[in-house]
Amino acid sequence: MAPGGRVVVVGGGFGGLEAAKALGRAGADVTLVDRHNYHLFQPLTYQVATGGLAPGDIAVPLRHILRSYPTVDVLLGEMTGLDVAGREVTIIAPADRAKGSGVGRRIPYDALIVAGGSDYSYFGHEEWRSQALEVKSLDSALEVRGRILTAFESAEERPEDQEGWLTFVVVGAGPTGVEMAGQIAELARQTLPPEFRHIDPSSARVLLVETGDRVLAGFPGPLPERAARALERLGVTLVLKHTVVDVQAGSVELSQPGGGRQTVPTRTVVWAAGVAASPLAALLATRCGAETDRAGRVTVNPDLSLPGHPDILALGDMVRVRDPETGEARALPGLAPVAMQQGRYAGRVVAARLGGGSIPGPFHYRDKGTLATIGRASAVADVQGLRFSGFPAWLAWLTIHIFYLIGFENRAVVLLRWAYSYITRGRGNRLITHAASAPPRARVAQRSDPRT
Amino acid sequence: MAPGGRVVVVGGGFGGLEAAKALGRAGADVTLVDRHNYHLFQPLTYQVATGGLAPGDIAVPLRHILRSYPTVDVLLGEMTGLDVAGREVTIIAPADRAKGSGVGRRIPYDALIVAGGSDYSYFGHEEWRSQALEVKSLDSALEVRGRILTAFESAEERPEDQEGWLTFVVVGAGPTGVEMAGQIAELARQTLPPEFRHIDPSSARVLLVETGDRVLAGFPGPLPERAARALERLGVTLVLKHTVVDVQAGSVELSQPGGGRQTVPTRTVVWAAGVAASPLAALLATRCGAETDRAGRVTVNPDLSLPGHPDILALGDMVRVRDPETGEARALPGLAPVAMQQGRYAGRVVAARLGGGSIPGPFHYRDKGTLATIGRASAVADVQGLRFSGFPAWLAWLTIHIFYLIGFENRAVVLLRWAYSYITRGRGNRLITHAASAPPRARVAQRSDPRT
Repeated sequence: MAPGGRVVVVGGGFGGLEAAKALGRAGADVTLVDRHNYHLFQPLTYQVATGGLAPGDIAVPLRHILRSYPTVDVLLGEMTGLDVAGREVTIIAPADRAKGSGVGRRIPYDALIVAGGSDYSYFGHEEWRSQALEVKSLDSALEVRGRILTAFESAEERPEDQEGWLTFVVVGAGPTGVEMAGQIAELARQTLPPEFRHIDPSSARVLLVETGDRVLAGFPGPLPERAARALERLGVTLVLKHTVVDVQAGSVELSQPGGGRQTVPTRTVVWAAGVAASPLAALLATRCGAETDRAGRVTVNPDLSLPGHPDILALGDMVRVRDPETGEARALPGLAPVAMQQGRYAGRVVAARLGGGSIPGPFHYRDKGTLATIGRASAVADVQGLRFSGFPAWLAWLTIHIFYLIGFENRAVVLLRWAYSYITRGRGNRLITHAASAPPRARVAQRSDPRT
Repeated sequence: MAPGGRVVVVGGGFGGLEAAKALGRAGADVTLVDRHNYHLFQPLTYQVATGGLAPGDIAVPLRHILRSYPTVDVLLGEMTGLDVAGREVTIIAPADRAKGSGVGRRIPYDALIVAGGSDYSYFGHEEWRSQALEVKSLDSALEVRGRILTAFESAEERPEDQEGWLTFVVVGAGPTGVEMAGQIAELARQTLPPEFRHIDPSSARVLLVETGDRVLAGFPGPLPERAARALERLGVTLVLKHTVVDVQAGSVELSQPGGGRQTVPTRTVVWAAGVAASPLAALLATRCGAETDRAGRVTVNPDLSLPGHPDILALGDMVRVRDPETGEARALPGLAPVAMQQGRYAGRVVAARLGGGSIPGPFHYRDKGTLATIGRASAVADVQGLRFSGFPAWLAWLTIHIFYLIGFENRAVVLLRWAYSYITRGRGNRLITHAASAPPRARVAQRSDPRT
């Protein structure tokens, strides 16, 4: 029997989307709320930042994905409030938010699933954010693309002021940082050289700054070392055991292992370090009386519900899940498969609860492996304990990413772009558009900061 | 012998690009200046505005196109000044312009080719511009895309306030207006209906407003009538013999043929009427003592040079060319083939002048025909006097556009998208990104208006 009552799912990322689909399959009435009108394939967003892929290749309208789920409704908006007793969430439309009119709509729910994801943390320095952009959201990735391309243009125009324009600093050597540094190095060494007359783009320095002592610290065995060697072959300079202590308009300052400090002149900084849970985690914790950790993640029960609130579930990067046996709260890796499995699970839990079916047992993550690509035909993989690197890992990476990409047209276009780029080393989407050329003041004004 | 001296080409559109290539082939030193880092295939820009194509499909970095011309240099910037006696142009980089620092670089030339193109004229009402966007530039087309998609989202969210959100007004029934109206109608009637729950997108009204008594007035014989019938079949309402007399935030006002006025509630207006030559035409006219017409076009000699200034040439939408026999100044149609032929011609004239070769005779436009598409598998064509419409015209349209598109990757991707969309009626690039969701104030601040 179809579940009775209305479910509100907040967040159209991997977790929220899977939850909405699971509920839609069960025939439940669902309202899926997201700030954007599209689902973003976040593992490839960094490729937009260097022109390898176009925004539309990796982003699909949520309405389009859910068009064949007649009981699922999509609402463009941001969750800004929660009334636990009255079972209502407050949603503000992006246009109203931009206008500064903060009057949201109150939407009643019988069950609520919150999948707000996470952002990078700037080590408590929010003021670095406008200078050191991330490549997790599509808008920011497009702006990074504009900044990287503008840096080469500026160096070409003023060959006397090259050092800052031709130094690129990537902060954080997790998968995104490693992939981003590799992409910038490829762009500089392989794509751009025939196109410039006054500078040599291949002389650009790409620094990958990491507080820890190795890249891809989450990968097992020999993979971090292999990734490091692959990055160095591409021309990436690894700056390990260094921490960013300041970001200025023309430089970053690093603390050195011995205790000294080092200033690196650079005009382009990409941030891929730290984890800060969505501010919705704090909202849930306050309203439901739950714990949060230092990264702002809220602790949920083994069935992903908030303590004492079986009608409210949360999942993905913004939660730690309590172990049913030890009682210990544990953060799972911030990966798409974790969110997808939790989303499907949460959908089943809520469908069972509203429909009177049997509630599934506690959530268990089935780890199928991890992959990271480093550059053209190079990757590291850890799949079911099997560790490999180089071309076979890249093929595995490519196959899995094409397979999980949503939409036949996107799969075909992305495969075509990668094949083309593999052969020619070209990148077809190197445009400096609107946002990137806006004056800094306008850019800051139009950033929609979920924390404010 | 390679031409001696330096040629500055301003504008990387169809005309400027062909001029730079012709000069590059002759071995001349060329600096090509453009505000954007890409060449835009403008005849298809309107398809970006409805999600049919992605920006990168129709825009290619100028550096990439010119990478195999070693004597051609690309400079990102805007021409803001001209010293005719000293033979120098002033160029401001977009980043400096955005910062408000107006100190440009002075670049010397031995020959100057200006191909600044044109914009739409707002009948003297520049204040309508931010409300009634054009779809000629990529940035504006992306913003139109965001506005159209947001209109459907807003109607879905507030079903009680549908009329304005679901009324789309396109002003001007030339090729761009006709194509744009057809695209919006297809989006509303074919792509979106399965994706909305509270509204019926196919009930949207698409009005094509035209001062004249028919659409595609530049097309001969039965083609305007056939285009009109094809538009009506798609659900476009033709509002002929009406003129826009006011544009407000929630409505447009039209003057009726009888003399009355009519207010149409609408939240989305697309402007494709009138012609205003690039302000560079006025700059050239002032500095060289040449005439301009009401659309701001400067009159050039039969060899495209400015009167009394054989070292300065201008071409494309921003000029009228004096007939070598009658002496009459004539504006050629604002089409890519005109600009391309003039660009190649100007390149040859300058190469001959600087290299001491024989100067070619006066410019003659070879008219190969005109095409306009109206919707899925429908178009009108006038090719070498052969007039046809429907599917054969659409095939001709498709073939020619794919053929002239720059870059193998783009051709393959666009063909794939059109094939996919032909079969499924889908549109893969329906994203509401950054610019569109920015508050109006920030948007206005970051518009780079060539007139200021």
